[in-house]
Amino acid sequence: LNIALLAGDGIGPEVIDQAVKVSNAIAKKFNHEIVWTSALTGAAAIDAVGEPYPDETHEVCMAADAVLFGAIGHPRFDNDPTAKVRPEQGLLKMRKKLGLFANVRPTFTFPSLIDNSPLKRERIEGTDLIILRELTGGIYFGERGRKDDGNTAFDTCTYTKEEVQRLAKLGFEMALQRGKKLCCVDKANVLETSRLWRQTVQDMEKDYPEVTVSYEFVDAVAMRLVQWPSSYDVIITENLFGDILTDEASVISGSMGLMPSSSIGVHTSLFEPIHGSYPQAAGKDIANPLATVLSAAMMFEDAFGLKEEAEAIRTVVNKSLAEGIVTEDLAGKNKACKTSEVGDWLA
Amino acid sequence: LNIALLAGDGIGPEVIDQAVKVSNAIAKKFNHEIVWTSALTGAAAIDAVGEPYPDETHEVCMAADAVLFGAIGHPRFDNDPTAKVRPEQGLLKMRKKLGLFANVRPTFTFPSLIDNSPLKRERIEGTDLIILRELTGGIYFGERGRKDDGNTAFDTCTYTKEEVQRLAKLGFEMALQRGKKLCCVDKANVLETSRLWRQTVQDMEKDYPEVTVSYEFVDAVAMRLVQWPSSYDVIITENLFGDILTDEASVISGSMGLMPSSSIGVHTSLFEPIHGSYPQAAGKDIANPLATVLSAAMMFEDAFGLKEEAEAIRTVVNKSLAEGIVTEDLAGKNKACKTSEVGDWLA
Ligand SMILES: CC(C)[C@H](C(=O)O)[C@@H](O)C(=O)O
Ligand SMILES: CC(C)[C@H](C(=O)O)[C@@H](O)C(=O)O
Repeated sequence: LNIALLAGDGIGPEVIDQAVKVSNAIAKKFNHEIVWTSALTGAAAIDAVGEPYPDETHEVCMAADAVLFGAIGHPRFDNDPTAKVRPEQGLLKMRKKLGLFANVRPTFTFPSLIDNSPLKRERIEGTDLIILRELTGGIYFGERGRKDDGNTAFDTCTYTKEEVQRLAKLGFEMALQRGKKLCCVDKANVLETSRLWRQTVQDMEKDYPEVTVSYEFVDAVAMRLVQWPSSYDVIITENLFGDILTDEASVISGSMGLMPSSSIGVHTSLFEPIHGSYPQAAGKDIANPLATVLSAAMMFEDAFGLKEEAEAIRTVVNKSLAEGIVTEDLAGKNKACKTSEVGDWLA
Repeated sequence: LNIALLAGDGIGPEVIDQAVKVSNAIAKKFNHEIVWTSALTGAAAIDAVGEPYPDETHEVCMAADAVLFGAIGHPRFDNDPTAKVRPEQGLLKMRKKLGLFANVRPTFTFPSLIDNSPLKRERIEGTDLIILRELTGGIYFGERGRKDDGNTAFDTCTYTKEEVQRLAKLGFEMALQRGKKLCCVDKANVLETSRLWRQTVQDMEKDYPEVTVSYEFVDAVAMRLVQWPSSYDVIITENLFGDILTDEASVISGSMGLMPSSSIGVHTSLFEPIHGSYPQAAGKDIANPLATVLSAAMMFEDAFGLKEEAEAIRTVVNKSLAEGIVTEDLAGKNKACKTSEVGDWLA
């Protein structure tokens, strides 16, 4: 198993280390050989080579069977809107060059963590939804710039029918494997791109007669995700709406520090925790590594087809939760473990 | 007091009726004369004259001191992305022609309703925030269309420095009157328009030394609004982000059916409940009129400078809640009142 390892910034390296330990333990147990190839990305790459997604990193990813990713982003870039090179550019370049067109973000509840949620238990019990976010199109990649001596700025959102079909096809197929409900989220009462989304999905409905399709406006979904998250099964949406809704969804389960994600690509696929680089905690050995470990589980299952290996990882993660072998964010009044201790225990 | 009355679609007419009753009672008590002028808008206007915001309606609004608005939108337009005339176009045209550049949406909790919230009590207690949404710019009003035989769609988001300054100025001034905290919400790590927003607000900071300003990404705010809504005071943001975040914020208080809003304009100002046209309830005399009644209170205070009148309305609304004179959405196990009964009682 040839895996590219992009640790990135902030807590990225620490949580990635734990996922490597656990993956190696699984490989040993199931007799696989993993070849890890580390490469630079994010602020770390800017510091080292002046570029957030260097060509060498791209080659490592292209040569790999899968990419395991930590997190990128550094506060020193956030309040400098004029910075020429920013870590996020590396992320976007990576998505585009690897053709990672679909970001898959499950949101589910861990029974033992349900009371951590800001939402009431009865609202979230049974929540098990997937948001499928289009990741290489829309306003993230359209033309943008300034006019009038810099006093006017513009961004362009563009979608083609093929981009919508590719993402929607995945959505229909996932829905067939699950609750058979698909919700297409858009702003078709205002945006032309949304009307293209809606028409395209409507045209595909006949090929998936078993799937019940609904169309909802993004503002309404931003409400209903908080009100009745368990009413959703598979949600498909465009890039920017997906950015906002996946983050919103991540907090409802009370298990944000545990949520993995994958990005399905034309050339390879990438697995990463949904949390960010959490710079305040960097280097302190206190960050929760479970989302990254569960991202590795997703990688075993989805990239390598190794279901049993993935299940073994999920089982030990559940065990760590049940036995309280957890970092400070989950420890409550009990003694917290260090990031590395959790990784060692899991491995 | 010369008020334009746009009842609109769905439950619009029913809830507007109650606000009129209450406003008339207040006018009588405080010796004001109100001249109401009704005009058509939304699907109702399309049916009557083929246009969702007819010229006559615009003239009525321009001649008025304030506009009281119900709701617009009808489901028969929602799943027809190709419909040439849609109610929402009327809304957008009205905003643009009246120059309603700032939508003001407070979110606060009513102690007696706090347990209706999907969020836990301890998360929302003390929430009192205002989202100031830019309403006449951005991707709502940029160039849009199709290319490649309709297979490619595009929308353009544009902002000028002046548009940002105008909105931000209001935000700074509101913050000064309140908790002195301003949060500018954008996606400056990706969008050029967001970078213009951030720069412009940064440049204005020096004029408001008492206000503490923060800059947050829209995806992070979509999370934090659910996690710690009480940490926000005044939020300023662009049109589309504001659409999503105001709806999200509206459910956290547990009092969505009660939240009023205003839109501040160049030519006049408009007051409306934040809920939609709720077509399923239309004509049944069951919709909650309190958000519209409280919008009338906002109108007395903000448009006419009549603070005592506004307070009198708020007091009687609180009383109706305390005494359980409420519609079915708030009645719980108690007997629900009809929409019109609540209006009569308040008046
Ligand atoms: C860092 C940023 C550019 C990125 C995005 O908006 O896609 C992040 O928020 C994410 O969701 O992965
Ligand atoms: C109906 C729609 C066009 C409108 C908007 O997006 O502005 C609505 O959602 C609102 O927030 O008033």
